[in-house]
Amino acid sequence: MKILITNDDGIGAEGIYKLACELSKVGDIFIAAPDRQRSATGHGITMHEPLRARKVTFFDTDFEAWSISGTPADCVKLAIESIMDKRPDIVVSGINNGPNLGTDVLYSGTVSAAMEGVLLGSKGIAMSLAGFKNLDYTYAAKFARKLVENLNDKNIPEDTLLNVNIPNCSEDEIKGVEITNLGVRRYKSSYMERVDPRGERYFWLEGELVDIENGTDTDVHAIDNNMVSITPLHFDLTKNSLIKEVEKWNISI
Amino acid sequence: MKILITNDDGIGAEGIYKLACELSKVGDIFIAAPDRQRSATGHGITMHEPLRARKVTFFDTDFEAWSISGTPADCVKLAIESIMDKRPDIVVSGINNGPNLGTDVLYSGTVSAAMEGVLLGSKGIAMSLAGFKNLDYTYAAKFARKLVENLNDKNIPEDTLLNVNIPNCSEDEIKGVEITNLGVRRYKSSYMERVDPRGERYFWLEGELVDIENGTDTDVHAIDNNMVSITPLHFDLTKNSLIKEVEKWNISI
Repeated sequence: MKILITNDDGIGAEGIYKLACELSKVGDIFIAAPDRQRSATGHGITMHEPLRARKVTFFDTDFEAWSISGTPADCVKLAIESIMDKRPDIVVSGINNGPNLGTDVLYSGTVSAAMEGVLLGSKGIAMSLAGFKNLDYTYAAKFARKLVENLNDKNIPEDTLLNVNIPNCSEDEIKGVEITNLGVRRYKSSYMERVDPRGERYFWLEGELVDIENGTDTDVHAIDNNMVSITPLHFDLTKNSLIKEVEKWNISI
Repeated sequence: MKILITNDDGIGAEGIYKLACELSKVGDIFIAAPDRQRSATGHGITMHEPLRARKVTFFDTDFEAWSISGTPADCVKLAIESIMDKRPDIVVSGINNGPNLGTDVLYSGTVSAAMEGVLLGSKGIAMSLAGFKNLDYTYAAKFARKLVENLNDKNIPEDTLLNVNIPNCSEDEIKGVEITNLGVRRYKSSYMERVDPRGERYFWLEGELVDIENGTDTDVHAIDNNMVSITPLHFDLTKNSLIKEVEKWNISI
């Protein structure tokens, strides 16, 4: 099995190292990740400037690894279309430093990298560790390995990836695995406004999470209850149920 | 009606100028757009650096306009949360220089700006002119005005925006309006590989569109047939139909 590994925290992040070490036990791995922190880049791709790709030493391993001057989606696109010999069977993105839950997946570089893999014909998994401090990637990496093995003989629809969030607790506190829907995440009005040393105003996004009710079938609920959450995602954004309604508006030219 | 206008081609682009002039006839407009070209930024937001917002003169008008050092989604978020007095009734993004059709909407800054507006509780429209040269925004701007007026008394689900593409032909060649599904767009393997003046290799995305069959109910088909395409989009990426299937895999911790 050929596995392309990427992330959005950058090629030097601990999460991608732990992920690569585990996945190297079950497949032939190839790493192509951003040269720096690229979180919240959404599904951005770089069109208006060139991309650099540099083969690098990956921690203490001899894995083939490329550091790329682009977004997570750029890394996957460039690796598959111009660097790798053959298309990977699966793209695994992560392990993200923090959750990717609910509506937040729209902003997620981790998720968009897995989605780009699926767009290009591979399977895709986005892996996130749903905590903010004292992160321990050991269990998440092991779970990723088991999931990749499990997925090997499964048929997944061509437009679908799996978004996985792992609770940030010790392995024996994890209560199970839940297959979930995306929940909703909202933030309190959220720019810090300051004045720089030259007297110019600037804004910095803070974003305090608002606690809102999320159904028991959601990813947010699963993580709150120490369950591993797996959400199948697709990239068809069409709101089918509204088509008939909009037709009734009789919008004319 | 309070209308927030943004785009991804930058605040100096012709498309946003034509759009603002038309929309100023039907509402109280406020412009907040990127200080430069930001296309294909997807739903990226800026978290790791500060944003600058500068009030600027907008062409030959006296419209209130802000030039922002961020992505289209940043512009909408910052305008609504920190600059505008009250939330706009609608966010209109565009008019994009080029189409935003099918799977390409995943990469679209234009679409993500309208989506951010909807996430923050306004209505949202993404407007694109589906051509690459000899673009004439006149009809597209007029259509946007009519659509905004039409939408004023409509109930749209809270998670939905409208993605509008206008054929780039003369007004009398436009055949009608079609309410569509997103089609599929694929590109031929697509990086130009070159060597820079210092002997270093670089890659530049080109991307030649592959002609693939798209159903008669798709946006791609509508545009190919000189119809205005309106696709209702939502941001729930959950692939509901796969949840039962993945549950059967019995993935355990």
